[in-house]
Amino acid sequence: GYGRFGVIYVEGATNETTITSRFRLQIDATAESDNGITFGARARIQQDNDGDSNGANLGEDAASVGGTFRNDRIETGINGIRYFARSGGLEVGVGNIYGAIDSMPGMYPVELGLTGLSYDYIINQAGGYSATYDSDGNGAAGRNGVEVLYAMGDLKAHLSYSELDLVANNNDLEGERIEGYLAYTFSGWTVALGLQDSDNAGDTELALTVGGNVGVADLTFGYADNGTNGDAFAITAAFDIGAATRLTAVVLDQESYTDTVYGVGVTHDLGGGTSLRGGVQNNRNGATVADLGVRFNF
Amino acid sequence: GYGRFGVIYVEGATNETTITSRFRLQIDATAESDNGITFGARARIQQDNDGDSNGANLGEDAASVGGTFRNDRIETGINGIRYFARSGGLEVGVGNIYGAIDSMPGMYPVELGLTGLSYDYIINQAGGYSATYDSDGNGAAGRNGVEVLYAMGDLKAHLSYSELDLVANNNDLEGERIEGYLAYTFSGWTVALGLQDSDNAGDTELALTVGGNVGVADLTFGYADNGTNGDAFAITAAFDIGAATRLTAVVLDQESYTDTVYGVGVTHDLGGGTSLRGGVQNNRNGATVADLGVRFNF
Amino acid sequence: GYGRFGVIYVEGATNETTITSRFRLQIDATAESDNGITFGARARIQQDNDGDSNGANLGEDAASVGGTFRNDRIETGINGIRYFARSGGLEVGVGNIYGAIDSMPGMYPVELGLTGLSYDYIINQAGGYSATYDSDGNGAAGRNGVEVLYAMGDLKAHLSYSELDLVANNNDLEGERIEGYLAYTFSGWTVALGLQDSDNAGDTELALTVGGNVGVADLTFGYADNGTNGDAFAITAAFDIGAATRLTAVVLDQESYTDTVYGVGVTHDLGGGTSLRGGVQNNRNGATVADLGVRFNF
Repeated sequence: GYGRFGVIYVEGATNETTITSRFRLQIDATAESDNGITFGARARIQQDNDGDSNGANLGEDAASVGGTFRNDRIETGINGIRYFARSGGLEVGVGNIYGAIDSMPGMYPVELGLTGLSYDYIINQAGGYSATYDSDGNGAAGRNGVEVLYAMGDLKAHLSYSELDLVANNNDLEGERIEGYLAYTFSGWTVALGLQDSDNAGDTELALTVGGNVGVADLTFGYADNGTNGDAFAITAAFDIGAATRLTAVVLDQESYTDTVYGVGVTHDLGGGTSLRGGVQNNRNGATVADLGVRFNF
Repeated sequence: GYGRFGVIYVEGATNETTITSRFRLQIDATAESDNGITFGARARIQQDNDGDSNGANLGEDAASVGGTFRNDRIETGINGIRYFARSGGLEVGVGNIYGAIDSMPGMYPVELGLTGLSYDYIINQAGGYSATYDSDGNGAAGRNGVEVLYAMGDLKAHLSYSELDLVANNNDLEGERIEGYLAYTFSGWTVALGLQDSDNAGDTELALTVGGNVGVADLTFGYADNGTNGDAFAITAAFDIGAATRLTAVVLDQESYTDTVYGVGVTHDLGGGTSLRGGVQNNRNGATVADLGVRFNF
Repeated sequence: GYGRFGVIYVEGATNETTITSRFRLQIDATAESDNGITFGARARIQQDNDGDSNGANLGEDAASVGGTFRNDRIETGINGIRYFARSGGLEVGVGNIYGAIDSMPGMYPVELGLTGLSYDYIINQAGGYSATYDSDGNGAAGRNGVEVLYAMGDLKAHLSYSELDLVANNNDLEGERIEGYLAYTFSGWTVALGLQDSDNAGDTELALTVGGNVGVADLTFGYADNGTNGDAFAITAAFDIGAATRLTAVVLDQESYTDTVYGVGVTHDLGGGTSLRGGVQNNRNGATVADLGVRFNF
């Protein structure tokens, strides 16, 4: 797992500058049958300083008493479990699945700054949801799906299925979401195409990414058709500057956003699994967000 | 601990076929004094795909938003702790106790299928409650009792006491439950007699089990007087068929149930602590329930 | 971590004598950079039999069903995380900080009995709050502060800052609390002076402790100016009587308390990290509270 802590700035928020932190402890439990199938479960004990992944809500108060705040936070235990059975290049996943669209190559080419800064630069973020692995404790047992992953040489494929609860409190799961991707790597470039058929009109319908290396830069181009949320185009670049420092830059144009998203981030390796990280971004609403802090792996 | 996942079918439920899963991580923390007393605590981090142990509720939705369901689930942390002090054959337990009736020999002779299929074939299940160890996270600190266990040679004894909260929200625990069992093993047969005195009219008053081996079969006979819930009779059989496969069969007649419960289950050992498990049962309401999946110990 | 369990008596409570227990599992995760800075996170999974640290609430019932009680307890997962960066004698802490006043030498000179008996004998307890490390699961992410600790030879210093949420539900943190202490040890005596400036009128403003050894006794004298809660004076003594037994005695006079607090406690070491502990106290309301039980470290 890892820990990280630092400072985050969100322009226009009630508390513009606040402390940000995350603790993630990962538990991977596995067993192997006599014929070589690995069965396993992945759980995370994760706590963010704010349960909401949206930076704008950081530092909010809740039902407060005598100088204590955020006592509504319950990010305290394990998240929803992902169960799997794996043999060679084939893996079946159940429960809190990864989801095909969200885990296709080139979807998260970089993590900007310390926290990712709300990930506004990711092409399927625009309310254009797909099934995603949820690391938070209050997502415990909250997600259920089935997926199949396959890898052979330069080819990768992923198919996932989840039920949707479109009408609340009727004891029924009315909708479905089927998603898949195919990715192929040739001459150092990876092309991935994801398709999704969902009963949720705002979900991503198609995503295409192309990633590779040009000179000193790792580049990723992305396009997504996010259904009723419109189209998104993105370019991401990452450069090594010096032996221990890496610079990232992101640009995204998404139809439903108020403003074009752009930002830069830097990661400086301190050795021993520790690093200094920071970033600045013009977010989807045109507000400036920035963070700076340290991360340590354990 | 162990993980398990598979598919469960409940006839007549709103979502008849759903995914079922459980993750259990057991933490046993102990220390031993100079004079040989072992003090310890047992905690479980457990998550079921549904917080309710009743199969009929699997796959229900809750307050749902945008394709997420079961976000009411909070099976995320440790369960109530059982503390103990042990010396030789004597053990004192405090907190989330096992309970005498629920842990007497022959009470849970088999676990049918992957999940136990709601344990409708257990003689003290008929609303005929006793103190029981609760593995769920939302049972945290929710149970408090005291118990004494004793074992010497072929004799086992267990006495437990817990307070009952019969009137809610009055800051008082009005009722009591005292339960005990005596068990003796001779010539390969174990006879256990459990008695309970409780302020809850529907609680089990007496339970008797006889278990042993006849040829290829492990047999268990059970009888319980479940107070206002009436009498229950059960027969359970388990056979090894082949080197790695075990078949179980259950029959139970309980006065307060709509229908006679009967079912069969199979466990196939895959080696390395992994197994394939499945079962079919006619449950207490006369509905067919079935499950199939894998379990792995870690 | 450790576990403890036993019996607690609170004169005048609805359930005067109840079971008391605690389970604490401590997780310290660290990483060290190439230039020798240690980054880390401390988390605790803790469960008390009652989520409230006030002995008077022990054994209360909540929304109860069929013999279960305290099902409102959610002390089930990790507490708020304390993050830190440490190099030599300097340490920076973020998140669920210790707080300067609460961690100054001589503030908690002894832990009376098994549970501390509500800590009524501590000079800054009188509603005179400062920032404190919160071990409970429902404190998860609920506390946020920054602190700097420094130690060099016989000198220790600690400065901490936290924001206060004085007005609930307005999305703003209106108040501040700055606290610090300086401590120096000479000829076996430690003198510590703590100062606090807080927007909460009832907070401790000044605390002074002097601790050292006279013959067989470890003595600690304390004084605190607890703002609108008035002044507190305390004397604490601890004696070793025999090879494995330690006796403690406490007296505290606090202006806002109904009665003078006094009490005695005893700890008997059983070896292997296990001990027998008990205490009796006249508490802040003049009621007698007592506890007795075992504790084991693991």
